[in-house]
Formats: sequence, C-alpha cells, structure tokens
Amino acid sequence: MVRLFVPDALAEGGAIIPVAEQAHYLIKVMRLEAGAAIDLFNGRDGEWRARLAEVGKRSCRLELLAQTRTQASPPDLDLIVALVKRARLEIIVEKAAELGARRIRLVTTRRTNADHTNVARLQAIATEAAEQTGRLDVPEVHAPCKLTGLLDGWDGARRLMFCDEAGDDPDAAWGGEGGRATPALDGLTGATGPWAILVGPEGGFDPDERVRLRGMPYVTPVTLGPRILRADTAAIAALTLWQAAAGDWREPQ
Amino acid sequence: MVRLFVPDALAEGGAIIPVAEQAHYLIKVMRLEAGAAIDLFNGRDGEWRARLAEVGKRSCRLELLAQTRTQASPPDLDLIVALVKRARLEIIVEKAAELGARRIRLVTTRRTNADHTNVARLQAIATEAAEQTGRLDVPEVHAPCKLTGLLDGWDGARRLMFCDEAGDDPDAAWGGEGGRATPALDGLTGATGPWAILVGPEGGFDPDERVRLRGMPYVTPVTLGPRILRADTAAIAALTLWQAAAGDWREPQ
Repeated sequence: MVRLFVPDALAEGGAIIPVAEQAHYLIKVMRLEAGAAIDLFNGRDGEWRARLAEVGKRSCRLELLAQTRTQASPPDLDLIVALVKRARLEIIVEKAAELGARRIRLVTTRRTNADHTNVARLQAIATEAAEQTGRLDVPEVHAPCKLTGLLDGWDGARRLMFCDEAGDDPDAAWGGEGGRATPALDGLTGATGPWAILVGPEGGFDPDERVRLRGMPYVTPVTLGPRILRADTAAIAALTLWQAAAGDWREPQ
Repeated sequence: MVRLFVPDALAEGGAIIPVAEQAHYLIKVMRLEAGAAIDLFNGRDGEWRARLAEVGKRSCRLELLAQTRTQASPPDLDLIVALVKRARLEIIVEKAAELGARRIRLVTTRRTNADHTNVARLQAIATEAAEQTGRLDVPEVHAPCKLTGLLDGWDGARRLMFCDEAGDDPDAAWGGEGGRATPALDGLTGATGPWAILVGPEGGFDPDERVRLRGMPYVTPVTLGPRILRADTAAIAALTLWQAAAGDWREPQ
C-alpha cells in the first residue's frame, strides 16, 4: 500500500491534489490507475484511506474515503546528532524516522569541522522514511546550532542520554570526571517522560564538553559496548535501546 | 592510530610485508613515514604494535614491537540475513562487524528474488569495519544458502532470535500460529550461550516460513516495535538489543 504525507487537512468527503512530485510518483513510478487505494497522513488528522479518482498526464486527484487510524505520535524523544559526513547523516535521519524520534537536532561540537548541511534534503529523507515506516507524523529536522547553545537553553524536564563514546580514546569513556558511564540499558531502567539522545562526532567529544555534560543533573552518561562505533551506528543503537527500554517497544501495540 | 588486519602470524621480533593494497593505504592515503606506529591483528594472536621500518614507492615493511592486547572474540553470535539490495546489505555487514557478530550468514527465502551476491566485497567491508571498530577478529561472511537448508541442519544448542516483522502486514506479527511475539528485550532476559539472529527480506517472511520457525524449540520470536523497519534497521536494532541484554555490553569492559 502506497502511503503519502500531505500538508492538507484530511476530513470526510475531502479531496487532495498531490504536488507534482507526488503525482509523478503515483502515476509514473508506481503506475497506479484510477480506483487505486492510497493511505494519506498529515501529522494532525490520523491516517486516511483515499482513492485515486482522476489521473492526468502530470497530475491527479485523490478522494478521501475514511479515516483508518486516529492521530498518535511516538514518545517525546529528540535525537541530537553532531554533523558528520553526508552519507552517514542521511542514514541517521532515515533510521531516526523509522525508530520513532520526534525531532532531529543537528549540532556542531568542538570536533565537528562543518557548520551547515542541506536541511531541506534531510527533511525530505525523514518524510519519505515516515511514509515507509507507517508513522502518523514526520520527525522535524532542525537546522544546525552549537551544542553549547543547546545546553545553555536546556529544559531541565527533559532527560539526556549522553552516548559517551570517546572516539579514538576508548579508555577515556570509563574514567575522568563523573566516573564510569553506565551500560545503556541500566541507565534507562524505569525511564519515563521526555528524553533526548546525544551522539557525538566520529572523533568523540572534547574533554571540556564531556566534563560539562557529565556535570548536568539531567544527563545520564551511557556506553554502547566495548567496540568503537561509527556515529550512525551509535545513533541507531541508542535509539533502539531507548525505544526498547523506555519507549513504545515495551509492549505489543 | 591506523589498525590493519593481516593474515600473517604475529610474534615477538617478527616483520610483516603488507599486501600492495595495504601498502598503498599506509604510504599514499595515510602518508605515514618510517617510524610511524601501526596496530596489527590477525584473529589469532591478539593485537600488536608495529613500526613502519622501511618505506618504498609501492611497498613497505613493518616490524613488530610488542603485543598490546591478548586475543579475544566477541560473544558467539551469528547474524542470518536475507539477501536485500546491495547498498542495504553493505550497511548490514559493516554494522554487524561493529556490533560484534561473529558470523554473517546470507540466506534466500521465499520472498527474496536474488540468490547471489559479491561475497568477497562483503568480506572486505567486514574486514575494514573490524579494523575501525577495534575488534581482534573479523566476522566471517558466508556465501548465500537457502533458509530451509540452514534450518534443516540447525544445531539445537544455538538459540535463534527470530525477528518476526511481517513486512507489509504488521498485524500478522501478533497473531497466527504460536501467538504473539515477545518484545525483543523480554525475549532475551537471562539469555546465555550461542545465539543467532534472523532478519527477513523487506517483504517479511512467507506464512509457511513463519509457521516452521515458530514451531522450532530453539526459536524465540521477537518484535521490534510498532513501526515497519527496513531490513538494515531491523538487523542493527536486533544486534544492539542482543549485545545490550545478552552480550558484551552488559558490563564495563
């Protein structure tokens, strides 16, 4: 079943004219014909079954039939991720959408050497992944900001799972200020409420950044095992553990 | 620190002549000069610190200095994964190496429509990821075989975590023969000994395959949350949960 995100309101008796790119996808890529069923969502009105009512060369019209699911969002989880190379950042965004992050915040740290990325492209990847994975919302991709600024304005009601991988110095993850980090699952036992996950750049965090993070009361430093993980692997692993231990994987849905 | 896998024996006073590709990497890509330190491992003799002793235009010689780590392997975990498109299969192999799978077994199922892949290329990806991640062994990539054949010859001492995602029919994961699947973490509580993880193709498993798997005494069917996951995401998530709950992420190393 084809699933599309649309910005339009979805309600009984409504009709939708998809944008050119979506019309192309339906008509040329998926080769759907009049009468075909499609699922639509907009992040507000749940999921709706629609019918392809009119098909032109470059455009089409969808008629809404009935709501099939009421609106719901995954748990309140942010993924905060340092800018890494494009291919790995794209994997992270796709997987964050599948693994139910609600927001993706891009940050620069002392050891990142880029300060911008194509946010519109990342948002498109997040939208397509949300369509594929069956969620009823699309994760928001926020433009890059400095990690220090994000921490300055932190809402203390949101817990932060700090993936304290030490990059090229694995031993550092176990010592220094604040003592040993906790195996990730132990750090998440009984976790509830809003959370964020912070994953650093491939070279790890700078010592000053680590000391600041470990000194903050809402931070839980965790480790992701004895091997050095690439940034994309660390992000996916951390999202998985959070969903399994504290999120919406705990019980059959 | 550059880390290389070599097939040679590693012992006190030994010297290594890297193959042409590795020599190119050391001399041209990393631009190392005589005297530079390099770490070597071969899957048998632990990790050794070596020194770049002689540098030619296309070849070099490494002198072994001292063993820095004794040999160890990650837990006895196989990843069994259905053939999927090349880009996603390559991600799976890279991540399986980082996440400590000991063997990667490629299988064909009723819903896979390919029966071969470039195993040598996948083995090279696994080797490079092992070098990066700091392990002392390289996961073995096995040539594709039929899932049915693999199950016919199954060693009953090895438990099987069956990721019972239902592809385009998520509801099916909760019903049918054998009842509901267990959230993955619950299914792994107290797990010890040799295990394997089975991840299906993007379209999920065929009903006959699911009935057979669920009827086998060594199989634990698990689910990976309420969203549909791509095959690479499912493989990475399953490896993560296994290592965190039953593998070598449980305690600080």
